[in-house]
Amino acid sequence: MTAGERAGYGVRLTGAELAAGIRAQVSASAAALAAAGRPPRLAVVVATTDESTAWYVRSIAGAASKVGIACDIMELADTADSEEIQAALRRLSDDPSVHGIILQTPLPTGVSFARAALAIDPAKDVDGANPTSLGRLAAGIDAFPPATAQAVVALLEHYDIPLAGRTAVVVGRSTVVGKPVAHLLLDRHATVTVCHSRTANLVEVTSRADILIAAVGRPGLIGNEHVDPAAVVIDVGTNATDDGGLVGDVDPGVESHVAALTPVPGGVGPVTTALLLEHTVRAAEEGAS
Amino acid sequence: MTAGERAGYGVRLTGAELAAGIRAQVSASAAALAAAGRPPRLAVVVATTDESTAWYVRSIAGAASKVGIACDIMELADTADSEEIQAALRRLSDDPSVHGIILQTPLPTGVSFARAALAIDPAKDVDGANPTSLGRLAAGIDAFPPATAQAVVALLEHYDIPLAGRTAVVVGRSTVVGKPVAHLLLDRHATVTVCHSRTANLVEVTSRADILIAAVGRPGLIGNEHVDPAAVVIDVGTNATDDGGLVGDVDPGVESHVAALTPVPGGVGPVTTALLLEHTVRAAEEGAS
Repeated sequence: MTAGERAGYGVRLTGAELAAGIRAQVSASAAALAAAGRPPRLAVVVATTDESTAWYVRSIAGAASKVGIACDIMELADTADSEEIQAALRRLSDDPSVHGIILQTPLPTGVSFARAALAIDPAKDVDGANPTSLGRLAAGIDAFPPATAQAVVALLEHYDIPLAGRTAVVVGRSTVVGKPVAHLLLDRHATVTVCHSRTANLVEVTSRADILIAAVGRPGLIGNEHVDPAAVVIDVGTNATDDGGLVGDVDPGVESHVAALTPVPGGVGPVTTALLLEHTVRAAEEGAS
Repeated sequence: MTAGERAGYGVRLTGAELAAGIRAQVSASAAALAAAGRPPRLAVVVATTDESTAWYVRSIAGAASKVGIACDIMELADTADSEEIQAALRRLSDDPSVHGIILQTPLPTGVSFARAALAIDPAKDVDGANPTSLGRLAAGIDAFPPATAQAVVALLEHYDIPLAGRTAVVVGRSTVVGKPVAHLLLDRHATVTVCHSRTANLVEVTSRADILIAAVGRPGLIGNEHVDPAAVVIDVGTNATDDGGLVGDVDPGVESHVAALTPVPGGVGPVTTALLLEHTVRAAEEGAS
């Protein structure tokens, strides 16, 4: 199916098909690695007692297990300081049986995520958390992009959404999503605008987007007034609701006002998890070579 | 003088005053370092026989000398490969008497600037060439920005041009200027668009800019049709002319069609050189502490 055939209002860009395809490849790679005596292993460092985080980390571990990747969850106290977290990351970086390392947010108050992540070996930095990975990404040198940022672009490519020469607007300037997404879109020759909380005229800017990426973490920030009817909208938001649900940064009603929208849940999320696993087997393969 | 007082058509944002102020501070710092038995030293690695490059490198060495910074020019063959260049950069990184390292472009055909620059110790990377420096910059961690990118923002701040909430458009997506300028402007809360050769509607995009940064390397790319009359335009282009002169990316006639424009030469250039020297004494001070 081409982009043209998919055009029309209210197309739902689900991530299930793409994620399943990635997981199938990862399963095969993991089996080959295990057969070669090098079973792939992922480690997640957690320093919070937050319940929704615990749920998310268990879901990663479950997904890893299903494709044949071992997943260790290393729980630090929610009072851990930067040095303790860095020490844990360094131990994992030095451990040859560990191929991928994730530093889970939120971190204890006062700990800088980017600074702590400097202790992750870039070769094992499967969620692109180390600023060195971001710099390499921006400079066009091999590095693992943050999985969420890559999932955005992977979804756009999966659905044959053209990017070259088109107007992409990223709402959100975080180091883990907004900035790396901007670099990935620039690499694909989009004209890229990054907006944020200080943007004076958000509606005016987002309305010009052929491709709109919402990555702020504010439920319903993007409404009908923010979008062009021809826009493709990617919702990166994963905001927990009081009743245990998950909502995005885009009002779901926007779906019928644009060409296409990713659902939350079921859009960027499953692709992100699949890419984390894909990065882990790739790190294991490259470590083996 | 405030931005308001400076407002009006055809203001010329020269770099001389700002550069002189930076150089005066650098002179004082360099004298203090020398008195402490730690004379600051800059090394420039050159692997080209290009005449205008040789001229530029001599001008850096001359400027360094005037403020009390020693400057070594390390000339490699213009056939040097990546490994030779990296070896030179590693030797300088390991040399405690050298505080700042510049890898001069152009490099021999086939050598990646960003990849070669990975061999520069980030603590000595005074022109922000190592992708690690760019990643740290993007993540808000201390790092030397590329001097040219920082000069753009330093000039805007020197002339009290407000950035927060304003529309900044960067034309050019290079790793050494366009991308780091975008990050520096984002840090200062501008809404930032990056355009490039594949941008479909350049005039439309640049015309919306409150602040327009031209960093492409194409003489006269930006003409009257590209600018809003209220725009502040920063010309990063330094294009050699056949008669030995230097022209920017912005047609000089634009000056009378906008609020303000930096001249070429005499705008971004002198500030860039001054900041390179400032980074060098800072690297020497930090290395000493």
